[in-house]
Amino acid sequence: MLRHVAMFRWSESAGETERMAVESRLASLPSLIPEIADYRFGHDIGLSPGNRDFVVVADFASVDDYLAYRDHPAHRAVIEDVILPIVSERGAIQFDLGT
Amino acid sequence: MLRHVAMFRWSESAGETERMAVESRLASLPSLIPEIADYRFGHDIGLSPGNRDFVVVADFASVDDYLAYRDHPAHRAVIEDVILPIVSERGAIQFDLGT
Repeated sequence: MLRHVAMFRWSESAGETERMAVESRLASLPSLIPEIADYRFGHDIGLSPGNRDFVVVADFASVDDYLAYRDHPAHRAVIEDVILPIVSERGAIQFDLGT
Repeated sequence: MLRHVAMFRWSESAGETERMAVESRLASLPSLIPEIADYRFGHDIGLSPGNRDFVVVADFASVDDYLAYRDHPAHRAVIEDVILPIVSERGAIQFDLGT
């Protein structure tokens, strides 16, 4: 198993409508991309000053399944349509989740 | 449920010994901190240039359980002893994982 994590800071001009559009669009992806084994995302709940704004945590059975997600047209469309317009910083990692 | 994610970039001078010490020390925490519901961590597996180096993903039943972990002496000791000496960047977030 592999876990992919992408963490974002939104631009200060990003409004609530734009932020919520990311969540609603991402929510559609598990039904469109069967390679996704587990898909969680959410906005920071405000416990710690200086936190990032948003994170996606996605689990896959294999590297190939992750790459299928990464390059899937539905995923790329979400990135292009609603993420790139408001992102000011992105950090990502893929790590081995064990079996 | 709440998920905490902390993502790191290590300093360029951090060697393999220092990097692996983080993993071995973190591995001891679930047995010391019963509030941890799920604990995963790992280093980047090298699929994407520019990725961060290391990530911790920890799940908790409540905000109180997360705070118990955050402030637990065993956790603080790992941070002081092996993480702070090699970290060049840290990003974190806590988000609602649902029920």
